[in-house]
Amino acid sequence: MNVLVLNCGSSSIKYQLLSMSNNCDESKVLAKGIVERVGLPEGLLVHKPTGKAVYELKKAYADHSVGVNAILDALTDSEHGVLKHINDIDAVGHRVAHGGEYFSGSVVVDERAKIDIEKCAELAPLHNPANLKGILSMEKLLPKVPQVAVFDTSFHQSIPEKAYLYAIPYEYYEKYRIRRYGFHGTSHKFVAEKACRMTGLDFEQSKIITCHMGNGVSVTAINKGLSVDTSMGFTPLEGVMMGTRCGDLDGGVITYLQEIEHKTSAEINAFMNKNCGLAGISGVSSDVRDLWTACGEGNKRARLSIDMFIYRMVKYIGAYAAAMNGVDMVVFTGGIGENDSEVRAGISSYLGYLGAEIDPTANDNRRNDAIISTPQSKLKLVLAETNEELVIAIDTAKLAN
Amino acid sequence: MNVLVLNCGSSSIKYQLLSMSNNCDESKVLAKGIVERVGLPEGLLVHKPTGKAVYELKKAYADHSVGVNAILDALTDSEHGVLKHINDIDAVGHRVAHGGEYFSGSVVVDERAKIDIEKCAELAPLHNPANLKGILSMEKLLPKVPQVAVFDTSFHQSIPEKAYLYAIPYEYYEKYRIRRYGFHGTSHKFVAEKACRMTGLDFEQSKIITCHMGNGVSVTAINKGLSVDTSMGFTPLEGVMMGTRCGDLDGGVITYLQEIEHKTSAEINAFMNKNCGLAGISGVSSDVRDLWTACGEGNKRARLSIDMFIYRMVKYIGAYAAAMNGVDMVVFTGGIGENDSEVRAGISSYLGYLGAEIDPTANDNRRNDAIISTPQSKLKLVLAETNEELVIAIDTAKLAN
Repeated sequence: MNVLVLNCGSSSIKYQLLSMSNNCDESKVLAKGIVERVGLPEGLLVHKPTGKAVYELKKAYADHSVGVNAILDALTDSEHGVLKHINDIDAVGHRVAHGGEYFSGSVVVDERAKIDIEKCAELAPLHNPANLKGILSMEKLLPKVPQVAVFDTSFHQSIPEKAYLYAIPYEYYEKYRIRRYGFHGTSHKFVAEKACRMTGLDFEQSKIITCHMGNGVSVTAINKGLSVDTSMGFTPLEGVMMGTRCGDLDGGVITYLQEIEHKTSAEINAFMNKNCGLAGISGVSSDVRDLWTACGEGNKRARLSIDMFIYRMVKYIGAYAAAMNGVDMVVFTGGIGENDSEVRAGISSYLGYLGAEIDPTANDNRRNDAIISTPQSKLKLVLAETNEELVIAIDTAKLAN
Repeated sequence: MNVLVLNCGSSSIKYQLLSMSNNCDESKVLAKGIVERVGLPEGLLVHKPTGKAVYELKKAYADHSVGVNAILDALTDSEHGVLKHINDIDAVGHRVAHGGEYFSGSVVVDERAKIDIEKCAELAPLHNPANLKGILSMEKLLPKVPQVAVFDTSFHQSIPEKAYLYAIPYEYYEKYRIRRYGFHGTSHKFVAEKACRMTGLDFEQSKIITCHMGNGVSVTAINKGLSVDTSMGFTPLEGVMMGTRCGDLDGGVITYLQEIEHKTSAEINAFMNKNCGLAGISGVSSDVRDLWTACGEGNKRARLSIDMFIYRMVKYIGAYAAAMNGVDMVVFTGGIGENDSEVRAGISSYLGYLGAEIDPTANDNRRNDAIISTPQSKLKLVLAETNEELVIAIDTAKLAN
């Protein structure tokens, strides 16, 4: 079956069309692309059909509905299309940022689901409204095709109360639903399962720590197949330091900065999300590749920012090893996790006390998926490429069947 | 020699007079007490001379100077005093909350020190000015006696850059000295050294995690005799949840709460310090003893608050085990750490993966100091009573000599 995966942002729509085998064991990307600058005077569609030339279309995409329509046109175009007719799309999978406490798994979208997704918009005001627009637009254009919602948060709904509550008055949880939700859920689950297949570990019986290190960074503790803790919280600001996000920060620093710099809460929030992290410490870039280049030129603050990043990753891995009373495997994924062997080696160098022994050759040989610990290493270290679109497509195909 | 230890708060002065042997191996408390409600119309001096009846004096103590004078009067009174003359005081040790980056150890107070303590008042506006008032008052009353300043922060000055910096723009460190300072330094060092003497571990060669759990709670990683990380940060709000403090909290929650509840930065700061923690979750009390009573009556939120506390302690212990690539000993101290065997057992139950094996009998037998792990336990677990006044007296005696 053919599954269209949509990831609607506030001003962009990413898409991927996959052909899935019946049991979802095999998949093939037929086309992928993006509509950028939705709602602005000059938008751009970039369409990449597999095995054909890239097609670009500059024009105004007034809203998400227009953008989605353009995607369907591109997919079925006689020249750069990959389908004969839009009826060849069997299901649509939507990435939805926030499922709150309503969704602990993916669902076929019905009226109830739309209401609940809208309710979660308070918790993800930039993302959920856009996700919902994508769903509504698709429903109009393909009324007979099942729409499936896959949530960034739902894998983490198994986190126990002691780990998801903040130490603020309990009423704030009851009244405002303030709690840890976590994000990157599809990625954490996907790479943990994949790494189990690679190593022969039983996903349902193992203690796994997954490190999703991209522009956003989160670490998840997975015990017996369930997420039991994760570093991102009520918002994606919490946890490890990231490209431009500060991650964990003394609340006293936040209010101190507000006072001495006369910042409003909105300003300090934007500051913590956009001006901090690797970029803030290094003064160079939020991208680790740029930081290594700067290190090579002797830039000490670039080196410091990487050392801090590694150290803060290590503390989360250690915390989750304790939370599970042990750990069998650490999995690295995301842009940094998949490509940066020095960061992986740096993190692993702290983990000897858990029985970790990295295999430098395996770690340095760039492959998509690899076991990078030695055969005798007690703690398995694995590099596993993530593929969020594929997870969405698999969930969608399974639910649509 | 006789050492007077002073701990000046904004409206109180605690004191203890100790007689120290020459090498400081032995000490004896001659008297202790407190002046409360300094600066208010009706103050109170409570004086407890060892072996004599408690003496109380209700009157107005207009400022710290008047309060300190009253303490000297009480110590030398013919009836409830313990000294013949104030000249029998050989040195005065002052607890100073914040030494910033100026002090990495205790010092004899000179003009330079007073200037630097004053500079640190920005970082501890409630405490350092009171500490300085105590020093200045004592200097006037006992001009020939050495005054020694002992800092809550100085033990943590060995923490490396990667651990003391926050992931905010580096300029904020340069401009405002925003960084992790840590607190309870005298306590962490004291109990770590004591626990090494108890277990035979070499303080200079061991990896130790000290858990100071009182009304304030902090965890410290000590590697080869040096503090290498600690859970309290720029302010004592950060870290583990505490009696009324939230500890670690997603910065996104802080700004969200400010917005939906229209709180100023000062209001949210007071909220995080006074309305959260064990008290906020349980709705019962900030005191663990009250919480256990409530648990016994079936109060689920009281139980939840303790579970959260234990879980958050465990994550810090795990994080620091990773930060040091291993740990030889965990030390419990402070009101909860010394008295609550269930909390100690609860924390230890997560640490089997580090080779911890608690001895339930040793843990349950209330003693001031005890090894509470089994002889074969790879990770040593120790309960060690803290005594901050004694640390201050020892440092004072050594520096005054």
